[in-house]
Amino acid sequence: MHRTKVRVTEDALDANTTIAQANRTDFDRNDVRVVNLMSAPGAGKTTLLEAALPGLGPKVGVLEGDVQGSFDADRLASLHIPVTQLNTDNGFGGDCHLDANMVRTALPALPLDEIDLLVVENVGNLVCPAEFRIGEDAKAMVCSVTEGEDKPLKYPLMFRTCELVVVNKIDLLEHLDFDLDKFLHNVDTVNPDVEHMLVSAKTGEGVEAFRSWLAAVGEREGSATTASAGA
Amino acid sequence: MHRTKVRVTEDALDANTTIAQANRTDFDRNDVRVVNLMSAPGAGKTTLLEAALPGLGPKVGVLEGDVQGSFDADRLASLHIPVTQLNTDNGFGGDCHLDANMVRTALPALPLDEIDLLVVENVGNLVCPAEFRIGEDAKAMVCSVTEGEDKPLKYPLMFRTCELVVVNKIDLLEHLDFDLDKFLHNVDTVNPDVEHMLVSAKTGEGVEAFRSWLAAVGEREGSATTASAGA
Repeated sequence: MHRTKVRVTEDALDANTTIAQANRTDFDRNDVRVVNLMSAPGAGKTTLLEAALPGLGPKVGVLEGDVQGSFDADRLASLHIPVTQLNTDNGFGGDCHLDANMVRTALPALPLDEIDLLVVENVGNLVCPAEFRIGEDAKAMVCSVTEGEDKPLKYPLMFRTCELVVVNKIDLLEHLDFDLDKFLHNVDTVNPDVEHMLVSAKTGEGVEAFRSWLAAVGEREGSATTASAGA
Repeated sequence: MHRTKVRVTEDALDANTTIAQANRTDFDRNDVRVVNLMSAPGAGKTTLLEAALPGLGPKVGVLEGDVQGSFDADRLASLHIPVTQLNTDNGFGGDCHLDANMVRTALPALPLDEIDLLVVENVGNLVCPAEFRIGEDAKAMVCSVTEGEDKPLKYPLMFRTCELVVVNKIDLLEHLDFDLDKFLHNVDTVNPDVEHMLVSAKTGEGVEAFRSWLAAVGEREGSATTASAGA
């Protein structure tokens, strides 16, 4: 008798990973690259997108994750790009992150045939968003210099899981006791290979670098087949 | 046959509430009042405590909640007050909040017979910490003016569940586009009765008001018997 052994790995048991891969396959089928953008509340994700998305080469859409309300989506809609709101407030106080299944429920509302790049603005939180793949090609985070030098050491998974750390609000550096070298050293401690860029979404300084990074992600090859390798 | 009907209410089914009440009973037995101090990452909870705890009337201890590490506890220990570290990193990426059971596991390490007031510095997060009672007498939050005016509307449960909102980093107001009146209006929208105070933990402005508030909580009557009413 021929017997086939199916090995159930821990990864396969993780429903979130399974759904994230399904999302990624759907994104790939539509030739859409996806950036998962994360930060603490008030680090400036939306202001950064307001500054960086106009003039971006690839056609971009935004999936806006919030516990409730559509404040950020309303701001971004004025850029005349497709913006889809995804609220997590079905629970008692609302989920503190997006997961793959939430993003999947939003797929029918996304104009995937009209865009090349989807930026998912996650719920403001430095812990749980880093734990859930959503089917993205790249994870990036925004960290404000007002948050202190210790954040990479206190929230290491977030800094470790991202391939880009945008250091925002550098226009405020002269008014803070923030030691940038110490912060970057702490980033390096938890994620030695991570790219970083210094930005002020308010003044525009450094925004072009972030715009170029987004454009480059938009031009990457689809990679659903490699998603199971841990992306 | 005599039958007794036990009505299982939703509240009774909530294990966290049950354990929070047990915590509160233990705190009351030791005549210790408890403040649950919450904020987004980097809003300045630790700096505020460094400024406010010296000179406080009631004898104070701190329970320091972090995903991992003891950076804040190390800072506060230099104040020569009892500081207990509670880490949440048993999970994959670490829990993003303290709950009643985590606090309960820390009880044996707390010098309850030596203190009048316990300040619990929660994990930096504006969502989940607001959902879990830990047995506290009062919930307070710190919100930095760098986080933007919209935070009460985006994280209403946090602002609604607290009896005090400390508006921190007001020394930076002159360098920001932050509309304080708009922010306070938004606070008022989600929690009309909440007390607020304007503070700069860095310059010391307004810190005395927070110190007085802490001292007043330390002098409250124990209230374990009212905990089931929703405290």
